[in-house]
Formats: sequence, structure tokens, C-alpha cells
Amino acid sequence: MFDEAFSDAWRLRYGSDDAPECEVAAVFLAHRSVRKYSSQAVPESLVEGLVGAAQSAATSSNLQLWSVVSVQDPERRRKIAELCADQSQVHEAPWFFCFLIDHYRLKRVAASVGEEAKGLDYNEFYTMAVIDAALAAERMVCAAESVGLGICYIGALRNDVNAVAKLLDLPDGVFGAFGLCAGYPADDAGAHVKPRLPQSAVWFREKYDREASIGDYDARMAVFNEAEGRNPKVTWPMRSGRRVDEHHLTGREALKEFLESRGFLRR
Amino acid sequence: MFDEAFSDAWRLRYGSDDAPECEVAAVFLAHRSVRKYSSQAVPESLVEGLVGAAQSAATSSNLQLWSVVSVQDPERRRKIAELCADQSQVHEAPWFFCFLIDHYRLKRVAASVGEEAKGLDYNEFYTMAVIDAALAAERMVCAAESVGLGICYIGALRNDVNAVAKLLDLPDGVFGAFGLCAGYPADDAGAHVKPRLPQSAVWFREKYDREASIGDYDARMAVFNEAEGRNPKVTWPMRSGRRVDEHHLTGREALKEFLESRGFLRR
Repeated sequence: MFDEAFSDAWRLRYGSDDAPECEVAAVFLAHRSVRKYSSQAVPESLVEGLVGAAQSAATSSNLQLWSVVSVQDPERRRKIAELCADQSQVHEAPWFFCFLIDHYRLKRVAASVGEEAKGLDYNEFYTMAVIDAALAAERMVCAAESVGLGICYIGALRNDVNAVAKLLDLPDGVFGAFGLCAGYPADDAGAHVKPRLPQSAVWFREKYDREASIGDYDARMAVFNEAEGRNPKVTWPMRSGRRVDEHHLTGREALKEFLESRGFLRR
Repeated sequence: MFDEAFSDAWRLRYGSDDAPECEVAAVFLAHRSVRKYSSQAVPESLVEGLVGAAQSAATSSNLQLWSVVSVQDPERRRKIAELCADQSQVHEAPWFFCFLIDHYRLKRVAASVGEEAKGLDYNEFYTMAVIDAALAAERMVCAAESVGLGICYIGALRNDVNAVAKLLDLPDGVFGAFGLCAGYPADDAGAHVKPRLPQSAVWFREKYDREASIGDYDARMAVFNEAEGRNPKVTWPMRSGRRVDEHHLTGREALKEFLESRGFLRR
């Protein structure tokens, strides 16, 4: 099946015209982070459908170790946006969701039948819950994008985890892992599909390839960055390397202590 | 827009006929884990399209902190299936993918420009990478299901993390987080949409609700379990409570030590 939109999205991702012949819909390739939204309202009924999609994601052993809080009250939205590095899209998005790792509900439910749920202290159940929450969010995002909405994940929800926990009244065993903005994109949203590493750098056969090359990725990112008004001379390795030095943790160096104080990752 | 398939899926998830009027496609609600596959081949070109979808998921700061290894060689597949609790679907699925948390590639790339990437030692970058990997996998899954494939996540990839690391030749900074089976469902796959908690137990407004009820979920799960041939008297709290006691970690109690030995979660 030839799908022009798919080939276009493939070209933007990989810089190549060799899109595989397959029936994958273009929408799954065409994600971009939308930071500017139109005034078109997103009705509650649509959000209910999207949360239905989120809950339909796989969840390990059906434990459903995540929850979501929508923050729509203007004053509370202003506060949470300030906690998220004051990002304009958090202030302005028609909907803002905080995705939570949630051990609390299961602990309460287990206690009701006399189970102590001590396993939740282990790293395993932190990791499992992070996976659960992310699977749910991304299914919601795919559903949202397929009806024309735009989204932006907000990792900055982890910049001040204590203040977020206080604002959202999170009990022990609950952690605000990431935020999600959603709304119809503004006409001038200026959001573009970003190049990604070549598949050969990410998808390995049979075993890990320690020598895998990033190919022409630097050059493709330079072109993209220049078009976006960013310095094309700051390469992907430079930009990424700085992002993971010790000086750009933007408050998130406190995560380990916070999580352990909230009952996660003790064993 | 009225969509009968959407209403049907909604009823299976929530046991109610009040599906919201919205344009969300039924496929996003209709996920079920498929453990039995037809002999219909899944061509490499389709998998390339699906990996394209995976790479198109959002990734924090474009760091792309994940990789995937497909295991197709029969002898290697047999070995990895044995490590995954010998689950039949891992043995038999047309494709099996190991999703990896990957700090190694970025560390190598950062080193090439003289950056030490010490931030990767922090919990923050473990959490970020788990989110990255799960977002990628779930976008791949949504794309796969939309073309008629069935999938099954394999948490048991974490049962013996050392042996998996050895089999896949994972360097420090790489961790096999979960597996994914994919293939066309067998006619008698017997996979069904599973009920989920009511939205009111998972989606909160403005702040966390510590008293949220699970409503009629026990009763709905009892009906589902009976239909699946499982004891309907073992309620969701009982089943889940046992799953998170200290005696059902199936090897995963070693996760913390393994991850710390591989350079994760040190700070």
C-alpha cells in the first residue's frame, strides 16, 4: 500500500526516500510536540474516550499501577505550570494531565483483604509502575493524535517533586512522573517532525551492537536545528552530552531521595 | 460520531453502555494480550514501519534513551523464552523484541565530544529512560494493532536480568526492561478485552482522591474470570495483593542490585 503521508513522515524522521511498503498509518510516524494550541475546546466526552484508551493499554498482571490527575482550575493550573519550569504550554493547553505512578490504590485494596503488599518496596514494582503509566499515556496520545489533537509531554513535572506532591495531595506510594498537555494545535504552532537516529542505531538483531554508528544523524539534526532557529553547530552529541552532565538536572537530582521517602525503591 | 465497535469495547472495559460520544477509534480501546499466533508471516517491511512508529514516540530532550533487539534465531529464541518463564508465546510469536533502557549509546556519543555524562548516574535518567522505552513500545503496539497484529508484553524478561544481559551482550548502562511478542492472532487465540477499574478510580480532578472507590470492579472481574476459566471467587484485591507480596517476585528481587551494578540509580 502506498501512502504518501507515510512516506513524507518517514523522510522527515530518517532523511530518506526508502520508506518500507507497509500499511502502518502515517499518524504513528508524524508525532511532534505541540506547544501552542488553538482556542477550540476539547470536550470532556472526548477526554473520557482518551482516558478509556489510556486504561486500555496493557498493564502488568492487571495491577493498574498508575493514575492521572487533570488540572483545569485556573489558579491550580498557574501553580503547576510554575512548578514545570513555567512552560507556556502548561499554562495554556486546553487540558493538562499529571500522570502518576500509583502504589497507593493497590496497597489500600490489598490491605482490605489482609495483604501487606511488601513487594511494592522493591525496585521491580517501581519500574513496573513507570512502564504502566507510560504505556497508558502513549496509548492516550496515539488516540489523541489520531483525532487531530496535539500533545506535549512535560518531564519538568519532576523538577520539584515535593511541591507537586503537595499541590496534588499525593499520598505515600504516589509520584507525579510526567505531565501531558493536550489541545488542538494552533495554526501557527510551528511544530515539526524531528529527525531520529537511523534504525540501524536503535534496532539490533539477535544481540546488542556496541559499535553501531549514528550515521548521518548529526548532519540531519543540523539541518533541522537551523530551520528551527537553533545553532546548527551544536551537534546532537554536544547538545545531548550537556543535557546529561551533572549541571542540568534542574532539581531532579532530588528524585532518589524523594522516591525512597515515599516508599519506592527501598529494596 | 456513533461507532458500534467503540461502544462494544467500552462495555467490555467498563461494563456500561454509556460510552461517550467521541471520535476515538475503537482500536485504541480494544487492546488485549494475544498469546497464540497464526502462521501468517509478518514481513520485515512491516516491522520496519513499526520500528519507525516506535522511534516517532516522544523522547525526553530527544535523547532517545532506548533500543530494541529482535530475537529471531531459533536457538536464541528458545533460550530467551526459557529465561522468560518459558512462556509459550515467547517461543512461538513470529517476532520477539527486547526493549532496552539504553544509556550506553548516549554515553559513547557524549564521550566523543568530551562529555562525561555523569548525570546518567542519577535516578532521573533511569526513570526517563524507562518512560522513553515504554512510550516507544506502546506507539509501536498501537500501530501494530491498527494493522491487525496482536501483541503481548513480557514482564518476565526481568526474571533473570543477568542471563538476559549475557545472552543479548548488553554493555553497562543497558537493561532489558520488557519483551514484546507480535504476530497475527490465531483464529483460536481466545484473547479477550479485560475489564478495567472505573474511570473515577483512576482519573482524578485537580488532586488525588484517597477515598476513590473501585465501584463494581470486583463483580465485573468475577464475571470475566469465570468466563476465562479462572476461579471467580479470587477477587481482584486478592489476586493483586498476592502478586505484590514478597513471595511472588520471580527473581525480580535482584533488580536493584543488578541495576546499580550496571551504572543505574547510583544517585
